[in-house]
Amino acid sequence: MLAVFVVVIVLVSQTAARYTANWTSLDARPLPAWYDEAKVGVFVHWGVFSVPGFGSEWFWWHWQGQQPPDQKCVSYMSKNYPPGFSYPEFAPQFHAQFYNPGDWADIFKASGAKYVVLTAKHHEGFTNWGSPNSWNWNSVDTGPHRDLVGDLGEAVRNRSLHYGLYNSLYEWFNPLYLADKKNGFKTQQFVMHKLLPELYNMVVRYRPDLIWSDGDWEAPDTYWNSTEFLAWLYNDSPVKDTVVTNDRWGAGCACKHGGYYNCADKYTPGQLPKHKWEKCTSVDMLSWGYRRNMKMSELMDLPAIIEDLVRTVALGGNYLLNVGPTPDGMIPPVFEERLRGVGAWLKMNGEAIYASKPWRVQTENTTVPVWYTSKGTTVYAIMTAKPPKLTLQLLGPKTSAATKVTLLGNPNPLPWAPVHPSAGLTVLLPQLPYSPGQAWTLKLDGIQ
Amino acid sequence: MLAVFVVVIVLVSQTAARYTANWTSLDARPLPAWYDEAKVGVFVHWGVFSVPGFGSEWFWWHWQGQQPPDQKCVSYMSKNYPPGFSYPEFAPQFHAQFYNPGDWADIFKASGAKYVVLTAKHHEGFTNWGSPNSWNWNSVDTGPHRDLVGDLGEAVRNRSLHYGLYNSLYEWFNPLYLADKKNGFKTQQFVMHKLLPELYNMVVRYRPDLIWSDGDWEAPDTYWNSTEFLAWLYNDSPVKDTVVTNDRWGAGCACKHGGYYNCADKYTPGQLPKHKWEKCTSVDMLSWGYRRNMKMSELMDLPAIIEDLVRTVALGGNYLLNVGPTPDGMIPPVFEERLRGVGAWLKMNGEAIYASKPWRVQTENTTVPVWYTSKGTTVYAIMTAKPPKLTLQLLGPKTSAATKVTLLGNPNPLPWAPVHPSAGLTVLLPQLPYSPGQAWTLKLDGIQ
Amino acid sequence: MLAVFVVVIVLVSQTAARYTANWTSLDARPLPAWYDEAKVGVFVHWGVFSVPGFGSEWFWWHWQGQQPPDQKCVSYMSKNYPPGFSYPEFAPQFHAQFYNPGDWADIFKASGAKYVVLTAKHHEGFTNWGSPNSWNWNSVDTGPHRDLVGDLGEAVRNRSLHYGLYNSLYEWFNPLYLADKKNGFKTQQFVMHKLLPELYNMVVRYRPDLIWSDGDWEAPDTYWNSTEFLAWLYNDSPVKDTVVTNDRWGAGCACKHGGYYNCADKYTPGQLPKHKWEKCTSVDMLSWGYRRNMKMSELMDLPAIIEDLVRTVALGGNYLLNVGPTPDGMIPPVFEERLRGVGAWLKMNGEAIYASKPWRVQTENTTVPVWYTSKGTTVYAIMTAKPPKLTLQLLGPKTSAATKVTLLGNPNPLPWAPVHPSAGLTVLLPQLPYSPGQAWTLKLDGIQ
Amino acid sequence: MLAVFVVVIVLVSQTAARYTANWTSLDARPLPAWYDEAKVGVFVHWGVFSVPGFGSEWFWWHWQGQQPPDQKCVSYMSKNYPPGFSYPEFAPQFHAQFYNPGDWADIFKASGAKYVVLTAKHHEGFTNWGSPNSWNWNSVDTGPHRDLVGDLGEAVRNRSLHYGLYNSLYEWFNPLYLADKKNGFKTQQFVMHKLLPELYNMVVRYRPDLIWSDGDWEAPDTYWNSTEFLAWLYNDSPVKDTVVTNDRWGAGCACKHGGYYNCADKYTPGQLPKHKWEKCTSVDMLSWGYRRNMKMSELMDLPAIIEDLVRTVALGGNYLLNVGPTPDGMIPPVFEERLRGVGAWLKMNGEAIYASKPWRVQTENTTVPVWYTSKGTTVYAIMTAKPPKLTLQLLGPKTSAATKVTLLGNPNPLPWAPVHPSAGLTVLLPQLPYSPGQAWTLKLDGIQ
Repeated sequence: MLAVFVVVIVLVSQTAARYTANWTSLDARPLPAWYDEAKVGVFVHWGVFSVPGFGSEWFWWHWQGQQPPDQKCVSYMSKNYPPGFSYPEFAPQFHAQFYNPGDWADIFKASGAKYVVLTAKHHEGFTNWGSPNSWNWNSVDTGPHRDLVGDLGEAVRNRSLHYGLYNSLYEWFNPLYLADKKNGFKTQQFVMHKLLPELYNMVVRYRPDLIWSDGDWEAPDTYWNSTEFLAWLYNDSPVKDTVVTNDRWGAGCACKHGGYYNCADKYTPGQLPKHKWEKCTSVDMLSWGYRRNMKMSELMDLPAIIEDLVRTVALGGNYLLNVGPTPDGMIPPVFEERLRGVGAWLKMNGEAIYASKPWRVQTENTTVPVWYTSKGTTVYAIMTAKPPKLTLQLLGPKTSAATKVTLLGNPNPLPWAPVHPSAGLTVLLPQLPYSPGQAWTLKLDGIQ
Repeated sequence: MLAVFVVVIVLVSQTAARYTANWTSLDARPLPAWYDEAKVGVFVHWGVFSVPGFGSEWFWWHWQGQQPPDQKCVSYMSKNYPPGFSYPEFAPQFHAQFYNPGDWADIFKASGAKYVVLTAKHHEGFTNWGSPNSWNWNSVDTGPHRDLVGDLGEAVRNRSLHYGLYNSLYEWFNPLYLADKKNGFKTQQFVMHKLLPELYNMVVRYRPDLIWSDGDWEAPDTYWNSTEFLAWLYNDSPVKDTVVTNDRWGAGCACKHGGYYNCADKYTPGQLPKHKWEKCTSVDMLSWGYRRNMKMSELMDLPAIIEDLVRTVALGGNYLLNVGPTPDGMIPPVFEERLRGVGAWLKMNGEAIYASKPWRVQTENTTVPVWYTSKGTTVYAIMTAKPPKLTLQLLGPKTSAATKVTLLGNPNPLPWAPVHPSAGLTVLLPQLPYSPGQAWTLKLDGIQ
Repeated sequence: MLAVFVVVIVLVSQTAARYTANWTSLDARPLPAWYDEAKVGVFVHWGVFSVPGFGSEWFWWHWQGQQPPDQKCVSYMSKNYPPGFSYPEFAPQFHAQFYNPGDWADIFKASGAKYVVLTAKHHEGFTNWGSPNSWNWNSVDTGPHRDLVGDLGEAVRNRSLHYGLYNSLYEWFNPLYLADKKNGFKTQQFVMHKLLPELYNMVVRYRPDLIWSDGDWEAPDTYWNSTEFLAWLYNDSPVKDTVVTNDRWGAGCACKHGGYYNCADKYTPGQLPKHKWEKCTSVDMLSWGYRRNMKMSELMDLPAIIEDLVRTVALGGNYLLNVGPTPDGMIPPVFEERLRGVGAWLKMNGEAIYASKPWRVQTENTTVPVWYTSKGTTVYAIMTAKPPKLTLQLLGPKTSAATKVTLLGNPNPLPWAPVHPSAGLTVLLPQLPYSPGQAWTLKLDGIQ
Repeated sequence: MLAVFVVVIVLVSQTAARYTANWTSLDARPLPAWYDEAKVGVFVHWGVFSVPGFGSEWFWWHWQGQQPPDQKCVSYMSKNYPPGFSYPEFAPQFHAQFYNPGDWADIFKASGAKYVVLTAKHHEGFTNWGSPNSWNWNSVDTGPHRDLVGDLGEAVRNRSLHYGLYNSLYEWFNPLYLADKKNGFKTQQFVMHKLLPELYNMVVRYRPDLIWSDGDWEAPDTYWNSTEFLAWLYNDSPVKDTVVTNDRWGAGCACKHGGYYNCADKYTPGQLPKHKWEKCTSVDMLSWGYRRNMKMSELMDLPAIIEDLVRTVALGGNYLLNVGPTPDGMIPPVFEERLRGVGAWLKMNGEAIYASKPWRVQTENTTVPVWYTSKGTTVYAIMTAKPPKLTLQLLGPKTSAATKVTLLGNPNPLPWAPVHPSAGLTVLLPQLPYSPGQAWTLKLDGIQ
């Protein structure tokens, strides 16, 4: 058969100033303001991978994709499943019988996060909504029998949180993708028959405030038609004015093109980046998806999370903290505890985080690590450990007579004295309140 | 979103005399000779529907498609499955653990059939091979984990049987199809993204001798792109010289366009049709697919099958007899018994069937029903019941002195006498051999 | 722990002439008359073994009991089930969703059988009723969630058939049994805690007309307390006047003690036995329980069954023909066909079977095999093949002038002539009617 | 049937001073010393109830036992399972695939507990070992296919922890029990055929240091044969010298007979009891068994646990803290976190707990709640909240010049002053160390 499938997408537009489908134009788009002010988000990895809940959400790949396969995965399957059992056969066990999006959204709200990002479709290709392009491999046709994406979106928005959707460009085992890959990405069967129709559908249907793109690295953006998609997204989509995107739109794009930058997973820069960025990380240090056999020692404790969050915000980043719900539809209590712990800390210290800007100096090593944020002439010095003495010396801030020092959570001004005539100060600390996050904030008003 | 997907299929050809993509041209193609000579085929309905095995292979539609739904199906599901259980969740139970294509092919061979037609894809859309356009909804990705189509093809061909594939054009619940349908079939998303790529793939991969098209009736052939497909099939496909097709290529095509005619399921004409046709029917009178709760009274017995076969061949048709294997991969013994019974009958009487032609007279009602077939001046008179007397009078044949009468299975010439000088004869019958099929053939040589 | 459990069964009685718990007394009990008159019964093997439906109803033992295990069973399990899957885990799949005892009983009635014997409990120990001594290992607590024994009993009796229950004394894997066995059967934990309470319960609850005991061979009857049980059964049970038992009550009992004799499975004596006996055999020649992968060649065809039945009755036996229902609760159609085939044959020839007695001569080899039965001076000569000639010579019967010969199913007297003055006759046969059972009966009235 | 089963247990003994089977004798037995010194234990509820993991470990009873049933349970089952699904059918899903007793025991050891009590058999009757009296309803025959009791015992003892077994006397749905109950407990079928053989087997096989009896309340101890069992346990069992029992041995026994007293679940006395007691309580305030849908707000936080533990020990009790593992065999991380939190607190404060004795005064309400324990002339005052001021006044202790005050975890003596000449003292507190348990201990040496 000598058949050539040619697919042309015609985009008709109406507005005046428009983005064109190239990086120069697209990269020039200003980031919608809500995102930088939000600072803290919750990431949710949920899918068929939550059913085996073994290893990580990359289970399928580790078991049957990579060469050689991960022997732990191979062995787990051979010990617990009949020979020949295939990954799609996990889907009917994705019951989600306790999935209550309102409960989830309450926890996310209580965490102090301002946005929530759900895996609408991970590398396995299973869509958490009834995608017409993913027949019988989505959460409505099998497993939960429910629109997981839509239901969480409604609950999240009812609590005034922004709602983002994670979408994987590639699908490990999609035969159309594998065929394109075999063809050196010179064909676009997968992109035309599956990826793009589905992605447009998702945007129009759920109007996400954020698209967290992933799975881009095997092919150039020209294969994915990324610039065309983004031009449509920014010019003509129903979310053109509010949507935020990240930087995973093709091999070589990360840290270079798109909206804000994720760079690598869990990436933290050594110094203040010039471009808005986000650190995504996971309470479970070994996985983004739920693991049935996770142990306490593999989880971040609250002080580590708070320290990470503070460092990220001081360096200009947003902090996207991940939890993996169970296939039953529950947020495991230990994750709930972490999220509520973050929220409790933010309740007292959020003033130093939300809508803050990085300061001239981002960090200072005194008796304890200190990270700075700022709002105009107010500077926040966040100590991520309990100071060993009753006084704390800070060298970064330049004080004046009008400078006022307080501890967030404590109404009384604290006595302080300059170290040098116009640089540094020594603060007499009060009794520090009980803080499971083990971090306290000094607010310095009137800093030059 | 204002996006228009335009798909253009370019077909490049090399040969001289070619069919064009219109019915006038396509209908003029001569039917490859093997088909009319074959006369008898076995039809096999196997798919996910074999798992519930309830009602019929239309279970999904009767349960969840038609309005109002079939209460028996609804009730069966609500009594035996958890609420929300969906049809795709049956697929993992399609184990096919005993599927031995060699055993099947032995049975089919023993039935005397010359061709076998398997449901490569029924209306449920599940493909019995690893179709790249039906990811996770095919027999390799889930259930049998095996290429059912390919494996049977090899076994069948090793036994010198022709191999045909049944393919449903429509898929009841495919969301792309439903969208096209909602658009009055003015869009062809389903046809371009699913149906055609898959169908081309199937032909190239399995080189079927016969394509048994079905599920065409809701849309015109222009929606299905049937004439383009058939032009390619007849001009450029790897089976262009041998392939046979039926007449289900769009609303209004049945009994009118295509290769041979099926007209309706189980259709039998009242008199000799002018166009080659085939009667498909099923041992289980209530279903084509396996039913877990079938009873003997719902099955055709051997005499009824033989009578039906004989009538069909006398009227110029082929006879395609259906059996439904179990989800375990077995031909139920009662079906095996029927098929072997047909084979035993054909072993003695096949001379009157294979490669025969309809005769001037097709049937005659004497003391028992008699059906005629012929080969040149030899005429076969098949009695489908035991004659009550020792003589049988036939009025149709015109005898001469050279006329010779024998009973198939018996070497001795039978005494006979003319009824009128040049019309009719009375034959003295011998003791009829034991025939579970309850039909015997008189061979009349030298008939004008 | 030095604890000794002593269990004493006190049986209180009221009647006069009573059996005592020893074989001399018990064996002297006359067999209730209904049994010998019935001649034909249907045996039904149904249990958890029907779920794997592989090998035979001995699957558990072949897989995990015998040493070395049957590699086919081991391999089947390792290919199709997860490691560690245990036999009790089959029970939840014993759905019986189509179990309609009325349909079964209709088929059994149509077979011409006069009694039905169901496996109430096979060697696996699973009881097909809610036995209090088999908690969570019975058909009410798991699987069918239904009283299979009771429901069939009611349906069978409504059709005037006798109802018998098969009960296995031993249970392959019951740990109490295994402990007793290890103790050389000097302890009776199993007998006291499980077997006897359950057996008494079964008799009182279902009042069986027949107890088909099995699984006795590993231990002496004194271990099973068989004579005590039978004394109670014959003296004081609610079925004391009607109940029939077989001969499997302890090692060495078979063919020697009890009610009628089964001797070995499928045992057929070479000549007329002195004691009433029964041949049990199975349509599926390889198994008593349902096999998912049975093939036609492994099944008895109807002529073989009829021949076997005729031989058995001629030799004074009863014929108990077995079928294995599916775990879904259906009699497979091929079994239904055999049973109805037997019934069709008995409809015409049953006069020679029911309530007949063995004759002086049981068989005679003339041109075809002939088996004799009798009722007073009427003798039935059953031909189990079609005679090659139009006459049949019989040497056994001594005729007189009053002797009259007919073919069952044909009202006309047949011409005959004596061979010797007072021995033997030659019969002129009529056209034999179509008989799928391939056996015909000559009725000889007035034989000395 | 008039059969009476009489079972006599003969116990043969060898030692001199022996307990007799009555409460006066049994209650006089001194409690083995290890128990009172241990103070802290971990309770583990694991069984088939962990599979539904809904409501609580009483799921079966709430669903199908009590009248009217709990509508939440009924509704959960009808929404998520097919009609007729029965509780025993949960057992095959009790996979325990991650069960690593060494990991569990590490956690238990790290919690500071000195003993561990596992549900060997809960009210559902399922035994977590291969009990011969619970065939096919135990963890070896179905589900885990493993000796859960034995494997944990070995791991626990390898870490020098004592090992106790929970055993329910009654079994909600055991038909033998229900029959006895219907008979007003005048029959003992259940006790003789199931309960006692199994219990003796369990003791001899696993040699538990503690038997945590339960499920006694529906019948008098005479029904359970409790005094006979305890006499054997104390006189002749392999654990006669070390075993500890509780007080649930028959209706009316609780708080009155047996070893130590549990009285009611979660019972806490208002003042110092005269008899050794134990408080059992659960991290999950709503259940002892695992719940799939537990939320953080339903769990005890660490300060509440520590407060409860301290109060219990101050009042002379032991503290048995429960966690419910998953059916997969994991201790949920949030439980692990609680247990390790208790361990961290005990590491610093354990001196005031282990082997302590209640003091003259048990509690005192000063600016924070204070609980006392003692070892000779050393008194421990445990503050279960952070004192609002830098000094703490205690009125209970009578000081002398030799009295020395320290804070556990801090080597420096603390300044103090008497309140009255010979009663009470005021202590100047140091900076309190970070304590997630929110409780600190003052050690007062040289108190009269």
